[in-house]
Amino acid sequence: MAQNNTGENTASKIVLGKNQYGKAEVRVVKITRDTARHEIEDLNVTSQLRGDFEAAHLDGDNGHVVPTDTQKNTVYGLAREGIGSPEEFLIRLANHFTSEFGWVTGGRWEAEQCAWERIIAHGEGHDHSFVRKGQEVRNAVVTKDGDNVYVISGLNDLTVLKSTESGFVGYPKDRFTTLQETTDRILATDVSARWRYNNEAIANGTVDFNKAYDDVKALLLEGFTEGYSYALQQTLFQMAQKVLDAHPEIDEVRFSTPNKHHFVVDLTPFGLDNPNEVFYAADRPYGLIEANFERESISDPGNAWDGIAGFC
Amino acid sequence: MAQNNTGENTASKIVLGKNQYGKAEVRVVKITRDTARHEIEDLNVTSQLRGDFEAAHLDGDNGHVVPTDTQKNTVYGLAREGIGSPEEFLIRLANHFTSEFGWVTGGRWEAEQCAWERIIAHGEGHDHSFVRKGQEVRNAVVTKDGDNVYVISGLNDLTVLKSTESGFVGYPKDRFTTLQETTDRILATDVSARWRYNNEAIANGTVDFNKAYDDVKALLLEGFTEGYSYALQQTLFQMAQKVLDAHPEIDEVRFSTPNKHHFVVDLTPFGLDNPNEVFYAADRPYGLIEANFERESISDPGNAWDGIAGFC
Amino acid sequence: MAQNNTGENTASKIVLGKNQYGKAEVRVVKITRDTARHEIEDLNVTSQLRGDFEAAHLDGDNGHVVPTDTQKNTVYGLAREGIGSPEEFLIRLANHFTSEFGWVTGGRWEAEQCAWERIIAHGEGHDHSFVRKGQEVRNAVVTKDGDNVYVISGLNDLTVLKSTESGFVGYPKDRFTTLQETTDRILATDVSARWRYNNEAIANGTVDFNKAYDDVKALLLEGFTEGYSYALQQTLFQMAQKVLDAHPEIDEVRFSTPNKHHFVVDLTPFGLDNPNEVFYAADRPYGLIEANFERESISDPGNAWDGIAGFC
Amino acid sequence: MAQNNTGENTASKIVLGKNQYGKAEVRVVKITRDTARHEIEDLNVTSQLRGDFEAAHLDGDNGHVVPTDTQKNTVYGLAREGIGSPEEFLIRLANHFTSEFGWVTGGRWEAEQCAWERIIAHGEGHDHSFVRKGQEVRNAVVTKDGDNVYVISGLNDLTVLKSTESGFVGYPKDRFTTLQETTDRILATDVSARWRYNNEAIANGTVDFNKAYDDVKALLLEGFTEGYSYALQQTLFQMAQKVLDAHPEIDEVRFSTPNKHHFVVDLTPFGLDNPNEVFYAADRPYGLIEANFERESISDPGNAWDGIAGFC
Repeated sequence: MAQNNTGENTASKIVLGKNQYGKAEVRVVKITRDTARHEIEDLNVTSQLRGDFEAAHLDGDNGHVVPTDTQKNTVYGLAREGIGSPEEFLIRLANHFTSEFGWVTGGRWEAEQCAWERIIAHGEGHDHSFVRKGQEVRNAVVTKDGDNVYVISGLNDLTVLKSTESGFVGYPKDRFTTLQETTDRILATDVSARWRYNNEAIANGTVDFNKAYDDVKALLLEGFTEGYSYALQQTLFQMAQKVLDAHPEIDEVRFSTPNKHHFVVDLTPFGLDNPNEVFYAADRPYGLIEANFERESISDPGNAWDGIAGFC
Repeated sequence: MAQNNTGENTASKIVLGKNQYGKAEVRVVKITRDTARHEIEDLNVTSQLRGDFEAAHLDGDNGHVVPTDTQKNTVYGLAREGIGSPEEFLIRLANHFTSEFGWVTGGRWEAEQCAWERIIAHGEGHDHSFVRKGQEVRNAVVTKDGDNVYVISGLNDLTVLKSTESGFVGYPKDRFTTLQETTDRILATDVSARWRYNNEAIANGTVDFNKAYDDVKALLLEGFTEGYSYALQQTLFQMAQKVLDAHPEIDEVRFSTPNKHHFVVDLTPFGLDNPNEVFYAADRPYGLIEANFERESISDPGNAWDGIAGFC
Repeated sequence: MAQNNTGENTASKIVLGKNQYGKAEVRVVKITRDTARHEIEDLNVTSQLRGDFEAAHLDGDNGHVVPTDTQKNTVYGLAREGIGSPEEFLIRLANHFTSEFGWVTGGRWEAEQCAWERIIAHGEGHDHSFVRKGQEVRNAVVTKDGDNVYVISGLNDLTVLKSTESGFVGYPKDRFTTLQETTDRILATDVSARWRYNNEAIANGTVDFNKAYDDVKALLLEGFTEGYSYALQQTLFQMAQKVLDAHPEIDEVRFSTPNKHHFVVDLTPFGLDNPNEVFYAADRPYGLIEANFERESISDPGNAWDGIAGFC
Repeated sequence: MAQNNTGENTASKIVLGKNQYGKAEVRVVKITRDTARHEIEDLNVTSQLRGDFEAAHLDGDNGHVVPTDTQKNTVYGLAREGIGSPEEFLIRLANHFTSEFGWVTGGRWEAEQCAWERIIAHGEGHDHSFVRKGQEVRNAVVTKDGDNVYVISGLNDLTVLKSTESGFVGYPKDRFTTLQETTDRILATDVSARWRYNNEAIANGTVDFNKAYDDVKALLLEGFTEGYSYALQQTLFQMAQKVLDAHPEIDEVRFSTPNKHHFVVDLTPFGLDNPNEVFYAADRPYGLIEANFERESISDPGNAWDGIAGFC
């Protein structure tokens, strides 16, 4: 019935390359209300399946196409048993789809999590009223490829700034160089970081993802504060080092961070000095630093990093 | 030299109505570094002048047009002496422009302020490293109209959620009604609130804007938590009441708040119950509730509320 | 049943001021398929009711609260009979709600419309395949206040640029002025314009809103091209004048337009000249010009302009 | 001088993995004004260098760090000689940086291009006044890796819709399936497509990128219209096939396309039928289909696809 579009008779044979499909941005809010003191979990989940889907592309035959609507329903159905952590929830989704449908050999499951905290009312955290924390957004990507499961955790948009102890000197000059060296500038960035867990640690199920997340975030922040920054690149290394030193279950840390320029405003035309006090915060263009740091010997990343934007 | 465009000879005479102009979104970051323990203030300022600008519009004569570039420079110049609070800074801008240029009879100055907190490193707040708080955005609008100065403070995007103690019943039904009554639902909104200070309190200079801001935010949050909500409208009244009861220097509070729907997912087709535990968080459409609350007798608002979007 | 929150016993009596509520951003796509050549209309509708809603706010009594869900359903229900133009559709919504519910004395109905065009396939416009035009967004606001109906039409984000025939000279200088005069610059803006129809023309039902829209857009564009621009303010007047001269059914035109700065890049450090050929397009800050133009004698605008952001 | 952070003495040696850095979103507008009939080119360029940058990361030694500011300046400097096409301009940037700095062994240069068209005034396209077309955004990515140069062209946000001749049937059902089969639905998507040119065609310099772009866009649109769609996957194949059949210089086409759901509104509660005329256009969640199509034999893609988001 479906028309044949395989183009077999055309001069140049066209084949299907890599592909995946699913439902994106399934917003699920889970309230745990076993007691009067409720808990809230808030996830934005994307599920994408990989496997044998050639017939759908080439012939319009949907016999293998688990509807994206079903994938959405599954997110809600599995949430009934609880979330726990984005990483654990995504692993459950991965296992469900690859065991339920023989031709689904793997896939990619991603989540963003918004954090909430209890509203302080009359001096105490309220039982069932929450306010969005609103700082960074936590994320996780679980990739399953046959029997291999890869877990990458991360955060976006953690905006940090040092008002001193940063400079930029000693760079090469050419015809197009007009930048002046400085030994005291503002260093500011929106940290986007991702860290991949060691495959064995994942297989053993020994990682406490929520605890690790909180600690990694704290270490990234602490690493940002320390010492004099000769380049954002160097500061990123310092941040990664703290994480990798403290977390043997993490194999690598990757960053994609803008250098958010804060230019000292020249106030001399107005008869004013400006000893690094008044800055113009620019939008575009901005520096963009992407750097990966890893142990000398790491577990095989497989295709875990594919499709994660902004990381080289 | 400028061509005459007044259209005086056309059949229908066209006149200039209300107008204002200026520089929008001047991002200024002020570091106070008198000691090793720096302070940071981060504002996004918009300055708009009102007065006699007819010649620019009708004849292209810029003799009265204080360049928007000059308005920007003035923001940076005045920031050299410190910010203090967005409200105070905008009042200084207002006074500057109306005293400097005789034909500038008033204007509108607006700011958004992003909050930063010190990064915790080795157990202590760091001297010169900060992380964006990222919760709500604080804002302020100062309007000057001749000798009158109006101050409206506010906040945007304070996202709150109650996981129970909210319902919606007793509403009128008609041909287009399909909504089912519920006595237990999630109530969630992004609070956008603005409050106007009493003109006399402003004239006397007695308001501590930063202290008031922190307290109003806390009261809005606390008001959201209290009691059973029969309607978002009622909860807003409760929130306004707390603010107006505690702050005699505030005359009125206005809200523009979405009702962010969280729909209970029907899990029965999957053989699962769902006792208000798993929700689908919808984007659009959303409810939109705008309501103003004020004392029975208030100081004249003049044109203070003009141009504030989303408030009826 | 609903708790009494009127606060009658507190020291300062608090009253409900202006208020409105409804459903925002109801996306409705209407396909007319009477023949094989389909038509598409794509609207994003917001409905807000005004009237006697005090009991909901003060007592949590929803007896008058037509659910926002019902307002949404009504948008879909009335779309079954066709859209026609955003303005006509909003007027139908206004008449429906104010006639259906006695305590609804008015309201505000707003729509954005996305334009589509037929995909060209094999040289002809396809019968049922469309591509989003994607240029400006058309909008309309209908306000009903008792028996009065006001109609404002408009457009957003019509981005235009003149690469010459624009300058800025003759402005006042002060301590904070650093801008250099120029007689040849780029003039660029995102036109946001709104025009209000004469009340009598609306009452008589003589306006062809779709035809008027197309013509006003063309006139705004044409007005932007003509002559030398001594100031964006002057160009806006020129644009308004063309509209008001050609459309007696329109009483006033209002603009809120950024001055999108394009700075000539100084290439002399690189040994290159730059005769106004290479520009840096800045994001923030930007100039912001708001100006209203109207006939000397116009029909009463009532509250038609309330809540339209960015127009003074 | 720079502190040593190499961590050589820590238990786990940490090394620098892949990295790149540069200046992002350099907005350059080029006016060609050789005659009174101006031409405009509008690009948003990102330049990122790869090579030997280990010292900056590990030791804070910037001796190799060509400042991102210099990269920005170079964009403007090279624009003085003209743009031509985004692809050609990026290739010139790539050749400049890799020839100018010995340790720069490659990099990634990306651009988005906004299209403008002449404003029609008095029946003719104006000489120097333009309006943003605003439909899709054209993009290009040039990757240089040693002597290899890869060129990928693309477009984003080309929103298309078929109001009939689309269905979805024959899919597998499981416990979580509630979707009903349909043989007549709306099919809508925002086309994001990227196509990679054959390496030899690039090396020979025989590709007319602007002409190819216009033609590929037209073929993608035409391909979308044709035939009955049994699945978005199948329609994508059809679109790719048209491109690859007509353009031997293109080796592969990749898509990342949402399935933008348009749900038929159930109007029966209101006593109305709805023969596929009134639709609710949903935002989230949405289907997400990613699929790559390529010739059976293609030139080596190298690392050309790295870091392009949303393509598996």
